[in-house]
Amino acid sequence: MPHPLNPAMAGTEPPPVMEARRWLQGVTFPPERPLINVSQAAPVESPPLGLRQALADAALNDPQAHLYGPVLGLPELRAEISAQWSTAYGGTIRDTQVAITQGCNQAFCAVMATLAGAGDEVILPTPWYFNHKMWLDMQGVKTVPLPAGPGLIPEAEAAAALITDRTRSIVLVSPNNPGGAEYPAETLAAFRDLARSRGLALIVDETYRDFDSRSGRPHDLFTDPDWSDTFIHLYSFSKAYRLTGHRVGAIVASEARLAEVEKFLDTVAICPSQLGQMGALWGMRNLSQWVAGERDEILARRAAMVGGFGALEGWKLLGCGAYFGYVEHPFAMASDALCKRLVQDAGLLMLPGTMFQPATHPEGARQIRIAFANVDATGIAEMFQRLQAFRA
Amino acid sequence: MPHPLNPAMAGTEPPPVMEARRWLQGVTFPPERPLINVSQAAPVESPPLGLRQALADAALNDPQAHLYGPVLGLPELRAEISAQWSTAYGGTIRDTQVAITQGCNQAFCAVMATLAGAGDEVILPTPWYFNHKMWLDMQGVKTVPLPAGPGLIPEAEAAAALITDRTRSIVLVSPNNPGGAEYPAETLAAFRDLARSRGLALIVDETYRDFDSRSGRPHDLFTDPDWSDTFIHLYSFSKAYRLTGHRVGAIVASEARLAEVEKFLDTVAICPSQLGQMGALWGMRNLSQWVAGERDEILARRAAMVGGFGALEGWKLLGCGAYFGYVEHPFAMASDALCKRLVQDAGLLMLPGTMFQPATHPEGARQIRIAFANVDATGIAEMFQRLQAFRA
Repeated sequence: MPHPLNPAMAGTEPPPVMEARRWLQGVTFPPERPLINVSQAAPVESPPLGLRQALADAALNDPQAHLYGPVLGLPELRAEISAQWSTAYGGTIRDTQVAITQGCNQAFCAVMATLAGAGDEVILPTPWYFNHKMWLDMQGVKTVPLPAGPGLIPEAEAAAALITDRTRSIVLVSPNNPGGAEYPAETLAAFRDLARSRGLALIVDETYRDFDSRSGRPHDLFTDPDWSDTFIHLYSFSKAYRLTGHRVGAIVASEARLAEVEKFLDTVAICPSQLGQMGALWGMRNLSQWVAGERDEILARRAAMVGGFGALEGWKLLGCGAYFGYVEHPFAMASDALCKRLVQDAGLLMLPGTMFQPATHPEGARQIRIAFANVDATGIAEMFQRLQAFRA
Repeated sequence: MPHPLNPAMAGTEPPPVMEARRWLQGVTFPPERPLINVSQAAPVESPPLGLRQALADAALNDPQAHLYGPVLGLPELRAEISAQWSTAYGGTIRDTQVAITQGCNQAFCAVMATLAGAGDEVILPTPWYFNHKMWLDMQGVKTVPLPAGPGLIPEAEAAAALITDRTRSIVLVSPNNPGGAEYPAETLAAFRDLARSRGLALIVDETYRDFDSRSGRPHDLFTDPDWSDTFIHLYSFSKAYRLTGHRVGAIVASEARLAEVEKFLDTVAICPSQLGQMGALWGMRNLSQWVAGERDEILARRAAMVGGFGALEGWKLLGCGAYFGYVEHPFAMASDALCKRLVQDAGLLMLPGTMFQPATHPEGARQIRIAFANVDATGIAEMFQRLQAFRA
């Protein structure tokens, strides 16, 4: 332990993905049964050539690519988001209500820093996204878990009972990581109404919205002319355009909120990567048809997941959408021990449900997250064969 | 005011650079007397062609450029820093003691988050770097100001009197922003001894070290085999290779400290920009001679600053080095009012000393920071003509 050490940081659990990576150490995967890694969902291939060319051209010829940009992001990118989102969500979003961040994790931290400090409370549905929990822990903010209802969909009524005078915000992720659930528009509207009536901020992280299986807008929150008094939207460019290594995300919120966010971003980031922002802008202007094809492929994989688990005895698919399937396993052992066994005996790396909720939630030991987005139809079929053959 | 609002964030002053930029609004600068902006020091030209070509090549052809990298940075870049720093500082720095961040501001925030939380105290010499103060404010950490001594150099003995049982760290910046002072090696050793004896961390931000006027290593801290029990070094790639828009910085600290830093970076950043890191690595491997030329040019401008203020009646150069001159003005008005007047009457944008220390320090009203790095010999001469002609 280094000294001195902030006890809130010491009490923050390390990211579970690292723990899972350690399970691979010393394990040999024979050539006829290579590792199938469904622990993390991130694009593994490069962005389309046109986007790479745009990045290369900017690096060579655009002096702005190498200079500090505005703290809240490139004006052209903010304007493009404002225009495209206003259409997509059927509401009015001004460019001054958009900020660009170094990835969507940072978008969350920046917004949350304006809402809650040590001693405050924030409600997160379980299973939760662990980096959200980590930020709250290291800031001394108390996370209040809200167990999701049927279909892994949280319920506003249950959340209402958890609100205290220290509660500052409710955070939803839809489509959900880790649960895969696509929250109905009515669910989001009910949470918005609850948040508004109790003076809380409703944060909705829509990192995976480009892979939502529903057509049309996923919710009506932006159609409310007063949306910005309560609603804060988060987005990531990493998945749609395969820009994970460039770190570009976005916040849509009131101008007053963004004036506070600007203090955080000036201090922690100064500005997002200029090249990454240029890549995101090029993608928004040129890749909508390409992204539609990517979505079709993800939806086909999702169908393979639904079909496969329907035919697999004892397993239960609790939620499935965007990049993730979230399942209940049939074995009389805890999910973390099971996941370690699956690495050794089946060449499958999955994350146990215990990583996405408090140790006090017994259901975590029965659950597993499967990030299927990087595995093609053949790989998914192979995964089901191995699960079928596995004996605990 | 948005609601809800974290009171620590509400109480954090916005970055003063933005305030200064507002002074330009509505002011016309005639063609024969254009604005000379010495408010911020950041390279304004592009990196050398070779570096731009390396970035373009990676964007087009290296799949790693677009993927998540390790949280603590590219192994090759960490190894290069470990090797070059070990030689430059005459000590042993392992690659596992190096982390890469999205710029040096983030390096500071990440390290400080592992040290101090709400209610703790941190000692900053004044004048201070305002983003350091802002992070402490928004985290609810109390900043304890340590007025610098002669030559704008802080004294360990004076710091000793400020330490309480809540003190976690002392933060130094050398060469200093805003003061320009190059701290003597003995000063840094004395602070290290103090910090070690009181169980504190000593952070030294060496963002401007490539423009230090002294030859040889600037301090002996790394020659101490036990350096990592107390000393934390911060660095930025923005200035040396003109990579401000790519956001690449570094931390050198103990492995145990970096294990805590990793939690913060995983949550706030996931990883630094891959392209930015590739650019920094290319620079470290190919641009040492070019950086030496950049330093010569900065030192020539520094000499022009020293000469100019020596001949300017009433003004006093308190500190001058790296990118900054820090001066005492001769007028019977406060520096913030004076700086606004200098915009209107002389076409000069400088930052008042009030922006770099608490309102309770009366000396701020007599002081001004001049970031001269972007202004060539002609521009510096022109600046002195205008100061000479100015009447308050």
